[in-house]
Amino acid sequence: MIIGLRCRECKKEFSPSIRYVCDDCFGALDVIYDYDSIHLTKNLLANRENNMWRYKELLPVEPQDSLYSFHSGWTPLIKASKLAKALGLNNLYIKNDSVNPTFSFKDRPAALGVAAALNFGLEAVGCASTGNLAAATAAYAARAGLPCYVVIPSSIEQSKISQAQAYGATIIAVEGTYDDSNRLAAQAGEYYNIGMVNINLRPYYVEGSKTLAFEVAEQLGWDVPDTIVVPTASGAMLNAICRGFEELMEIGFVRNTPATIVAAQASGCNPISRAYKEGKDVIMPIQQPDTIAKSLAIGDPGDGIYVLRRLRNNGLAEDADDDEIIEGCRLLAQTEGIFTEPAGGVAIAVLKKLVEQGKIGKDDKIVCYITGNGLKAPDVLQSILPRPIVVKPELKALSSILLGG
Amino acid sequence: MIIGLRCRECKKEFSPSIRYVCDDCFGALDVIYDYDSIHLTKNLLANRENNMWRYKELLPVEPQDSLYSFHSGWTPLIKASKLAKALGLNNLYIKNDSVNPTFSFKDRPAALGVAAALNFGLEAVGCASTGNLAAATAAYAARAGLPCYVVIPSSIEQSKISQAQAYGATIIAVEGTYDDSNRLAAQAGEYYNIGMVNINLRPYYVEGSKTLAFEVAEQLGWDVPDTIVVPTASGAMLNAICRGFEELMEIGFVRNTPATIVAAQASGCNPISRAYKEGKDVIMPIQQPDTIAKSLAIGDPGDGIYVLRRLRNNGLAEDADDDEIIEGCRLLAQTEGIFTEPAGGVAIAVLKKLVEQGKIGKDDKIVCYITGNGLKAPDVLQSILPRPIVVKPELKALSSILLGG
Repeated sequence: MIIGLRCRECKKEFSPSIRYVCDDCFGALDVIYDYDSIHLTKNLLANRENNMWRYKELLPVEPQDSLYSFHSGWTPLIKASKLAKALGLNNLYIKNDSVNPTFSFKDRPAALGVAAALNFGLEAVGCASTGNLAAATAAYAARAGLPCYVVIPSSIEQSKISQAQAYGATIIAVEGTYDDSNRLAAQAGEYYNIGMVNINLRPYYVEGSKTLAFEVAEQLGWDVPDTIVVPTASGAMLNAICRGFEELMEIGFVRNTPATIVAAQASGCNPISRAYKEGKDVIMPIQQPDTIAKSLAIGDPGDGIYVLRRLRNNGLAEDADDDEIIEGCRLLAQTEGIFTEPAGGVAIAVLKKLVEQGKIGKDDKIVCYITGNGLKAPDVLQSILPRPIVVKPELKALSSILLGG
Repeated sequence: MIIGLRCRECKKEFSPSIRYVCDDCFGALDVIYDYDSIHLTKNLLANRENNMWRYKELLPVEPQDSLYSFHSGWTPLIKASKLAKALGLNNLYIKNDSVNPTFSFKDRPAALGVAAALNFGLEAVGCASTGNLAAATAAYAARAGLPCYVVIPSSIEQSKISQAQAYGATIIAVEGTYDDSNRLAAQAGEYYNIGMVNINLRPYYVEGSKTLAFEVAEQLGWDVPDTIVVPTASGAMLNAICRGFEELMEIGFVRNTPATIVAAQASGCNPISRAYKEGKDVIMPIQQPDTIAKSLAIGDPGDGIYVLRRLRNNGLAEDADDDEIIEGCRLLAQTEGIFTEPAGGVAIAVLKKLVEQGKIGKDDKIVCYITGNGLKAPDVLQSILPRPIVVKPELKALSSILLGG
């Protein structure tokens, strides 16, 4: 079903291969499909297993057995009645990716990246990442039986990458900046023929996040939300989700795409939201991101300009500061029992602000993407939680607590 | 479908009510069903939603909407080919409860406990717990809109209960021992009419873990494993899983129950395994549990004697020390990409030992229950993980690493 790769800028086409920038203009490459050759029906889908590979016709690589059997994706879409009420909404859903196999949405692109690596016969994979992607790539590599190299700046605390290490990844800590470690990862990928999932396999990798659109539409009974709220860092996930809905329309599964796309950013790293609000057409990088939402702290978003164009057409952007983010996490946990990392708090906080600003309709069908697990950043909420109430082991010690005194 | 409660010892029966010990003999109470009135078919099940409530006819309480919509249970059963190979087995599955909504198997009993509390019209819930159960009870209480009181000894570090706090639970830290805090929780439940899920709602609560049997059988195409490996603390989960398989046979869904039941314990808290291996018929409590598997550190297991009787009939028990537990976690993560807390490492380590001892057949169909998420105890594996390899930001610095030098 995949025809090849195409430059997003000059439209030059390439056969399917390990490359990520255009030879001519250095533009980003996207996978292209022959939609006419796709023979997929809703009935066919209804009989497939509940994982992200059910949409294989719309993905660039078919999974090997070791990857297929991991039950990736098809995470719950939860009707969030109590949170909706707290926000003054009537029709709110949470897409809960905190229960993916490695506990974030990064399972989706990492699965595609590792599948592509196997497909191209590569003998090792890796990534430049300090968090969720490192864990996801390491886990899929473990299942595939490939060594995994995670490249990070040496300033990162080891606790942030221990999940990836547990899966057996080798951690390469570069004495330098994030840019230094990204550049070294890119060089290593090329020189040593390593599938760096978010670099030289990026065109395949990003396709994984389209399943966040496919699943939502199918879980809504092949309906499309009016509004989607997407935590946004590089912008790759937001772009992929939008393309996912567009592809469903292309193959006739839905009649429209979401009317409003919301990019949710942290105020301490808001290059897209700032450009949107200031009416700019270019993204000014944030030199020193400063936010508790570490997984959104990308100061120079690779897909930022494409996201901005989408938002100008039919979207909104807003950002939330650290206090608002924590309050977003708290609100989601205490109304819906869903414990998310700060990036999820960003989505809830931004939704709250936009409702208060009157920019989102109370009766809109809204889907809010919760992309990671609260256990990934246990220190964040802990800082504001109350101390336990200490009592003697006597029933009378409880009276003021349990009677609401 | 539920007739009432029955004393496990003297068989006295009670109508469905908030009680957990027999008036006459202080025996534990179990829920009893009228199996003849259950009209459940496999086809009926096949059309239900993929969550634990699909087996509602075999559960004591029907869920309220707020609980039903949480997508609890129906966690993946993963064919573990690489782990099987590492252990010299041919037919091994992992039941992965690390991806339940609150990231452990405790979602199952907590869901039943909170559903029962709502059913009985109680206005608050709680539990005596320091870990997974506290988090689960707090999350289901949040969804149900009930206050939640978690009673712990004051010596527990706050980090262990921050997930429960995030969901809005009030933490009551008792100046005293575990026994003191359990006793105070029991008194508070009775005096203040609080549904303490693992105390006064225990007969309903424990039924939730039966779904670990129902799901495995259905996911195997209504087949039953030859051998199940169950991390064991109080013994309530192992007992419930066994009753789950027995009930499926009772209603004609399967033709047998697992031939071999394995109770997997930590060597630092092994009252059941020790009694089994020493040929005793009573359980001698462990006074000072000392193991990294904190969620299994119950020195005086309430259901221990019932587990022991089952094991004498068709089971095995074994325990694993801290090094073996960590190695079990590492092995599972690096072969299957599944990151578990130490209790899961106990199950893998015990399976490994029993295979090496020749007590489990290589071709047996084995299901190993992984009951909690590795992010719950991030310090455990971290202690043995290698330091990252620090390099300068130059390609040549990688040659010895990437060429396997």
